Amino acid sequence: MTTREETTALDKLNRALESGALQQVRFTLNTSLRPVEVAHLLEKSPPKERQILWNLIKEENEGKVLQYLPDDIQADILSTMDTDRVLAVTESLDTDDVADILQQLPERVTKELLQIMDQQNRERLEEILGYPEDTAGGLMNTDTVTIRPDITVETVLRYIRRHNEIPEMTDSLFVVSRKKESYIGILPLTKLLVSDPNITVREIMNTDIDPIPADMPDDEVAKLFEKHDLVSAPVVNTEGRLLGRITIDDVVDVIREDADHSLMSMAGLDEDEDTFAPLMKTTRRRAVWLGINLITALTASAVIGIFQDTIDKVVALAVLMPIVASMGGIAGSQTLTLVIRGQALGHVERSNAGWLLNRELLVGGLNGLLWALVVAGVSIFWFEDTTIGLVIGLAIIINLIAGALSGTLLPLILKNWGIDPALAGSVLLTTITDVVGFFAFLGLATYFYG
Amino acid sequence: MTTREETTALDKLNRALESGALQQVRFTLNTSLRPVEVAHLLEKSPPKERQILWNLIKEENEGKVLQYLPDDIQADILSTMDTDRVLAVTESLDTDDVADILQQLPERVTKELLQIMDQQNRERLEEILGYPEDTAGGLMNTDTVTIRPDITVETVLRYIRRHNEIPEMTDSLFVVSRKKESYIGILPLTKLLVSDPNITVREIMNTDIDPIPADMPDDEVAKLFEKHDLVSAPVVNTEGRLLGRITIDDVVDVIREDADHSLMSMAGLDEDEDTFAPLMKTTRRRAVWLGINLITALTASAVIGIFQDTIDKVVALAVLMPIVASMGGIAGSQTLTLVIRGQALGHVERSNAGWLLNRELLVGGLNGLLWALVVAGVSIFWFEDTTIGLVIGLAIIINLIAGALSGTLLPLILKNWGIDPALAGSVLLTTITDVVGFFAFLGLATYFYG
Repeated sequence: MTTREETTALDKLNRALESGALQQVRFTLNTSLRPVEVAHLLEKSPPKERQILWNLIKEENEGKVLQYLPDDIQADILSTMDTDRVLAVTESLDTDDVADILQQLPERVTKELLQIMDQQNRERLEEILGYPEDTAGGLMNTDTVTIRPDITVETVLRYIRRHNEIPEMTDSLFVVSRKKESYIGILPLTKLLVSDPNITVREIMNTDIDPIPADMPDDEVAKLFEKHDLVSAPVVNTEGRLLGRITIDDVVDVIREDADHSLMSMAGLDEDEDTFAPLMKTTRRRAVWLGINLITALTASAVIGIFQDTIDKVVALAVLMPIVASMGGIAGSQTLTLVIRGQALGHVERSNAGWLLNRELLVGGLNGLLWALVVAGVSIFWFEDTTIGLVIGLAIIINLIAGALSGTLLPLILKNWGIDPALAGSVLLTTITDVVGFFAFLGLATYFYG
Repeated sequence: MTTREETTALDKLNRALESGALQQVRFTLNTSLRPVEVAHLLEKSPPKERQILWNLIKEENEGKVLQYLPDDIQADILSTMDTDRVLAVTESLDTDDVADILQQLPERVTKELLQIMDQQNRERLEEILGYPEDTAGGLMNTDTVTIRPDITVETVLRYIRRHNEIPEMTDSLFVVSRKKESYIGILPLTKLLVSDPNITVREIMNTDIDPIPADMPDDEVAKLFEKHDLVSAPVVNTEGRLLGRITIDDVVDVIREDADHSLMSMAGLDEDEDTFAPLMKTTRRRAVWLGINLITALTASAVIGIFQDTIDKVVALAVLMPIVASMGGIAGSQTLTLVIRGQALGHVERSNAGWLLNRELLVGGLNGLLWALVVAGVSIFWFEDTTIGLVIGLAIIINLIAGALSGTLLPLILKNWGIDPALAGSVLLTTITDVVGFFAFLGLATYFYG
């Protein structure tokens, strides 16, 4: 199928696996590749190969690899480990990554794990685990470098030099009060480096940026990061005490997942859906979606059933009717996708919904008119029957307007009801355009031929 | 529709616009809001309001607002300005942002602009404009802080302190050779801050990270940033000379656009599509998509046309036939979406395509079997006819397998041909599942009732 002689790492590993050269694979996995690359490799391997590869990874590398895997695969792998093993695996990780991993475990195991941890780690973890994974609290890590406002730049520099290492992704130090560790402001490293050594932190710190409340939803955190071009940001509890920080690498994951969410949900898939999920798991998930869509299809059939006599008289109607439903569905889907994306980006809200509905109705009407003429022409030519042209033309205009109407209103209404428009929108839209399409076309035909 | 008494900034502005309180709006736009917030506001405003708002923005703020707007809207606004105005507007911006804006202008205007710029800016800009917008060169800016490898940490610290300000998003200094400015390595600020002042840069710099070649496509740049959790990265030309740097804020935009691309393309929309694009512009774009889909629908009708006589005999076929096409289309879309996303994430490639096809065929077969039984049962009960149950059951199994086959193979083949699977995949898939569905169902019916 392709002529490119691309030899990927996976190809090589596959060949090594096939030839049984496990020693070589083990070496590659533990020495040549970075943990994130191993995770990527596991992700693109079918389940059986994935298990074999996982077993070849050295224990000390398992944690690092695990943190880069999506939830689905993490849960699968963790379910095969006992508690001691999980503890060993998570020992070398950041608290936020440990928390993410623990969230994939049954509660009983998490409790057991927390009991055998040392106290400082346990307290930090319990703090993070108290917040849902999709909030600022769930995203944060506790690797902050904090300073007091009343010390000088020189003291800060000396204090930092005593660290052997500053945590990765540290672009700012957080200024907190001596009492209660209340968040006061940030001191960017770039500012620290250019400031007069004798000046105090208070004089140069930045208090413009509001700290992020721990219960802020993660998509709002992502919008804040995008808006202010942040690399890291402080997280506080309701009393204003600094709990930790969120870093851009974790925000990027949120952005990618959110964007994936609309795409996957509109096809009835879960954005955590593993491309290589095992057969039965994915069959079951998709069966549900097909079942829901079958209800749509049966509804459409029921509408057609009403007009059986008319079809019996004019069989050309059966030939042409899918066109009406299809054109309405396509036009409606375009509107729906546009509105769902607008909602995700925060562009569509009550204040401009009226304008949008108006425009979409006009687009639907104009395109309805255009394609009604074309399809009417084709139909008249094909069946040498002017009436059928008139009927299908009218039905197309009606259905494209129905598509525009439901494509705009459905996501607004669903969101208002707390239902995810990306998930429910497309099924409902198809139901509407199918029902309206068949009803308009066959109803008009019954009237004109009746 | 909603009871929440949410008063957004847009609501307020709208009311102010309506009541003609332009002075108040002008004040809000130029004083209370940040440029990125003004851009967001413009983005969510319908065209007419957008133009009014834009005219209220002070000249000195226009550039900053412009850089946060999507290409589409940028081009619209720029087309109303003369060359001198564009020059004034872009004066305060980073070179990469100016380059992005210039790319929205006709070539003639760009040339004129470059001629009236000062030499240093012109040279930098020409360098960036030489690379397509969707490559590392197009993404980069030239705000790098460079140092030589043979100086000490203390000298670096002194050199930096002489700057009044370090460019935003600077997490690392770039180490370049004295001759020809060849890239050698990076020195993270966090490393600089904890190192012994008497040590030389060479001893502590990081040479692990390969610099990014200027012609690397932007989605690969994004993958590199995600893989290595980068905040900024050096960009070099083919000779290894440092040209500039890419920062995470621009990479986040790439990630969002790429993720949007699949969603929008599958509905025949452009990811740059402005939610509030003017009526005629969006009508024209969507008319093309409807036209392409009409060909699919007409093909399906042609297939049904072949079997008119059979439908004439058994009108129940007309009632049930949309179910077969719809179930195949839904199942195929799920596979298609999964594979297209897998391709975008770099998970699906030649080495694992075989496994994936195999699994999808099994999923299709199993779900086909399950829903064939259900639909057959419903049909037999509805029309009191066993033959029709047998026919529709078989047709559903065939069509779900056709959906799995084309959902997996189409994106692989299209990508191999250099055609975007997200754009062409869904139309082709629907054509296949419609044609196969109607052909299988009506063909089998002709055989059994014939």
